[in-house]
Order: sequence, then structure tokens, then C-alpha cells
Amino acid sequence: MKRAAVVGIDLGGTNTLLGIVDQNGRLLSDVKLPTQSYPEIADFIAALYRHVRRMATALEVELRGVGVGAPCGNYYTGTIEFAPNLPWKGVLPLGDLLQAEFGLPVRVTNDANAAAEGEMRYGKAIGKKNFIEITLGTGLGAGIVIDGKVVYGADGFAGELGHVIVEKGGRPCGCGLRGCLETYVSATGVVKTFQEKSKDRGESDTVVKPSEVTARSIALAAEKGDELALEVMRYTGQILGEALASFVAFSAPEMIVLFGGLAKAGNLLLAPAKAHMDQNLLRLWKGKIDLVTSGLDEDQAAILGAAALAWRA
Amino acid sequence: MKRAAVVGIDLGGTNTLLGIVDQNGRLLSDVKLPTQSYPEIADFIAALYRHVRRMATALEVELRGVGVGAPCGNYYTGTIEFAPNLPWKGVLPLGDLLQAEFGLPVRVTNDANAAAEGEMRYGKAIGKKNFIEITLGTGLGAGIVIDGKVVYGADGFAGELGHVIVEKGGRPCGCGLRGCLETYVSATGVVKTFQEKSKDRGESDTVVKPSEVTARSIALAAEKGDELALEVMRYTGQILGEALASFVAFSAPEMIVLFGGLAKAGNLLLAPAKAHMDQNLLRLWKGKIDLVTSGLDEDQAAILGAAALAWRA
Repeated sequence: MKRAAVVGIDLGGTNTLLGIVDQNGRLLSDVKLPTQSYPEIADFIAALYRHVRRMATALEVELRGVGVGAPCGNYYTGTIEFAPNLPWKGVLPLGDLLQAEFGLPVRVTNDANAAAEGEMRYGKAIGKKNFIEITLGTGLGAGIVIDGKVVYGADGFAGELGHVIVEKGGRPCGCGLRGCLETYVSATGVVKTFQEKSKDRGESDTVVKPSEVTARSIALAAEKGDELALEVMRYTGQILGEALASFVAFSAPEMIVLFGGLAKAGNLLLAPAKAHMDQNLLRLWKGKIDLVTSGLDEDQAAILGAAALAWRA
Repeated sequence: MKRAAVVGIDLGGTNTLLGIVDQNGRLLSDVKLPTQSYPEIADFIAALYRHVRRMATALEVELRGVGVGAPCGNYYTGTIEFAPNLPWKGVLPLGDLLQAEFGLPVRVTNDANAAAEGEMRYGKAIGKKNFIEITLGTGLGAGIVIDGKVVYGADGFAGELGHVIVEKGGRPCGCGLRGCLETYVSATGVVKTFQEKSKDRGESDTVVKPSEVTARSIALAAEKGDELALEVMRYTGQILGEALASFVAFSAPEMIVLFGGLAKAGNLLLAPAKAHMDQNLLRLWKGKIDLVTSGLDEDQAAILGAAALAWRA
């Protein structure tokens, strides 16, 4: 009898990662497709299917399902809705298209929820029933787990914690609101904070070259002890920690997991975030909520999360 | 065969309301006990039992369970933990004590969660799977319903939305933090806002007599068109609406229900709250989240909620 496996798809604006994953979360085979090379969704689906068939045949596995993590992916409908960075516009019936091509059960969710699924099945949240996964990339996403299940809400879009307003009338956000959490706590937000603070203090105060200002270069400079970069990380951690305190008041999780590029800054971000979270928590929670970085490999996390979702299907 | 019924208990700092409720949510019989007259919890439990036995015998019902809504009630453990306004201190095994005395399944929760249970079974949220019940009394409580179940979180204390910080360094709260939502949006908060604003503008600007400043007198004055009182309601509604927007981003509910004294101010509070909630929501939710006042009779709501919980047991 063939081994059972599932397909995990990490659909991104630039690349789509496609993998075959076994029940233990091992990525048996994978391939990367340039998403923008498929202006027609039908061609994209056909390409996915060709690659999956080739890999599944070589591995001699029996496929049980398909999981997809995609920007603006809706769990209930299997659609992608108005994703600004994808080549296909409007409301896209991704789940139905994949199901028709693959003849397998398909589950679609957004990237952050996929990360939460992966963390629960393969990462730091194994055995945890109540936790929040915060993904820090260009923006800020969240997957909220309550009672062992990712929260989707009435319409499938729960967990938009990047758009909780933390500063009334604050920085303009791509969503049209102002002061959204992700305008401060994200790769973009960190760069913005650096630019604001270096204007106040003079650029000569820092080792970060203006031409190289990225969240990564700021984090590296902070690691080397650069004071301005450290101040940026502290400020970012403070805003994150204050927001986390209100999330704890909502769902009383036992753990909060930070995932993604910025999370790699580790204690430079984690320590101030933890301190400010605790300062703003009710006494009953102070010191009791674990704040940790993800246990998932960043390159594999989205595929593994999508695969975890497929195993549920 | 006897009719089935349950016991609903609304345990309050001043009075405890005790009722027998049938499956259709009819309160068949009830009684009020002065909570503070029982310095010993054992006497209190015995008194509850005596009254319930008397009522059940007269009604000829068969009791199936007991539900309790109590301040600081913990659903998981059945305990009341450090409730500041009750005569019994520390961690109180209320569920166990009742179970031993009544010989029936017992469920304990806090007042706001009981209200959410009641709203879901007998009020405006019948058939709703995702909604948030906000109770506006001396403080602000919340019962969050996701996928048809009240959220309790890892420790039983989820939904402490009164202690989400909405104003950094703002008004001091009884909990030790500053700027908590309930220091603005609650009976106490409205009075405080009135006092602040009347100091700025001079008391002669309003019909509310300084000796009569209560949330109720302010709401009544607002209804009569008093400008300062209207401004207080608008300000309260704004802070509430902004907070509601972030709650929507968290759990994507289809409805938010306001319950309690302040909610009776109706549109004076609801209209600005709705406007500011919509202003601060992502486009996908604007205009789509119902904001309504409770469908439960205020005097019966807590008993009915506790009874709804008992039916689940």
C-alpha cells in the first residue's frame, strides 16, 4: 500500500511553494513556481497539478487532500477575495478550481491562519488549545486558536489583528484606516519608525546606511548595539506588547507565538514586547502568558501549515 | 411525568436572585435573597436549597441542573475567585458546594457570559453563532460567542474587554491599570466624563443637578436635549465604537449586543457607537456588523442566562 500524504500550497504574490507532506510533517518533495508568470488562473492550476502528479508518482504516495495558504484566502468559501498582490483580480474560486483539477478535498485559508495550523501541528504550540500566532512580514497577520480550532468568525475573516487601531489618527495604512497595528509592527513599520527617529536625531547617530534601511539591516544594527536601531526595536516591542495585552483580555490564550522575519530579531523585540504586555495585563495574567518565537522553519512553515489544514480535511 | 426545569442563580453583591426556569425560558417562580445576610457560605447554600425545594415542590417540576452567574465565576473550575463585592473571600468552590447540596449538575460562569448564554437562547442572538455581548453596568463586561460557544480561553477568564486599554495613561481603573475601556464606557465612566466636561464648561450649562449625577440622570437629560449630557453620550459612544471595531477585527462577529443600564440610553449611545465602529473597520466589515440592544428583560436576564447554561449541563 502506498504511503499517505497531502499537498501543501503556499501561494504568494511573488512565488508559490508547492510541497508533498507526510503525516509527520516531513516535506518529502517541493517546487517553487513564479506566481506572476501565470496571468491566467487556469494555467496556474494546470501547472500545479502537473508538478504534484510528477512528485506524487516519484514518491509513490497516495494523496489525501490539498491545503492552501493564500493572501485573503477565505476558509468558508475557498475563495481568494481581492488580493492586491496576485495576478488574478476579484473573487477567485480557488478551492473549487483545485478540487475540480485534483479530485481531492481542498481547504483554503489565509497565510497567518495557515501558520497557526502549522504551529499547532508541528511547531511550538503542539498540544496547546488556546494560543495566538502573530505573523510579522511586510504587514502583520494573526491566526487565533481557541479550544484547539482556528477562529474564522461569521465570514471567514476573523483575526485581522494588523488592523486594530493602536494610535488614533496615526500612520496611514494601506487599508485606508490610520494608526493600524501593522503600520508600526511589521517590516514596513520598523523602517518607518527608523526613518522618523533618524530624522529627529540625525543619521550620523547610526550605523545603518540610508540606502540599506530595511527591517533586517535595522535588526542587525541593533544586535551590534547601535543605539538608534535599539531604540527602534524597543519602540516596536512596546507597541506590540501593548496590543498583545488587549488580545489576551479577549481570548485568554496560554501562549503567543511570533512568526516571520521580524520575529527573528528575538529578544530585541521579545523582551520589550513581553515587558509592555505584562504591564498592561490584569493581575491574573501578569507573568503567565508565554511569548515565544515560532518553532517552524520559515521557508517551510506556510507549506506545513497548509498541509496541516489538508490533514483536517 | 413531571415537567423538566432548571435552577438559574444570579449571584450579586447585594442580592441573589433565584429562579426555576422551563425549557422555553419561562421563569416559573423566583425569589430574592440578601447576599450579605449570609456571612457563612454554608448557610447561603442551605438557604438556596430550601427555597429551590419549596418552589420545585409547589411547581411539581423535576430539576435537571443548576446554572450560576456570579462575579469572577470561573466556568472551568466552578469557583468564584477573589470577588471584591461578595461576603466570602478567596477562592470559593461554589460549584462543588452546590453540587453536593443539590445532587444536580452545576455550571458556574461570570455575569457577562451568563448574559451571552441568555441572549443566545432567549434574546436577540437566537440562531447566531458569532456575536459579542457587552454588559454595561458599574463596569463593562463581555461574553464572546464564537461558533455557537462562549469563549472561556485557557483559564476560564476570556472576555475581560472592560480592561482593554483604550487611552494610554488614561483614567485609573479599580484593577490597577490606567485607561481601561470600563473607566470610560460604564455607568461610572459616564459620570466621570460628565464631571470632567462640566468642569470645563460650567455646570449652569446643563439641567443635571450636581447632587443627582448618575448615568441615568445624564441619559435622561440627554433625552431631553441637554447639550452637555448629549456631548457626554456622544463621547462615550465614540470610545465604545472605536473599541468595538478592534473586537470585530479579532473575532468577526455578525452582531454586537449591548446589555444593561447604559444600553437603555438607546440611540443616544448606539448611533455614535455605530458610526465610530464603522469608521474604524476594514472595508469588508463597514456597515455589516449589527449593533443592537439586548432583547432580554434586564431583571430576568441573569437568571435566564444562568438557566441557559444549566440546560447545557
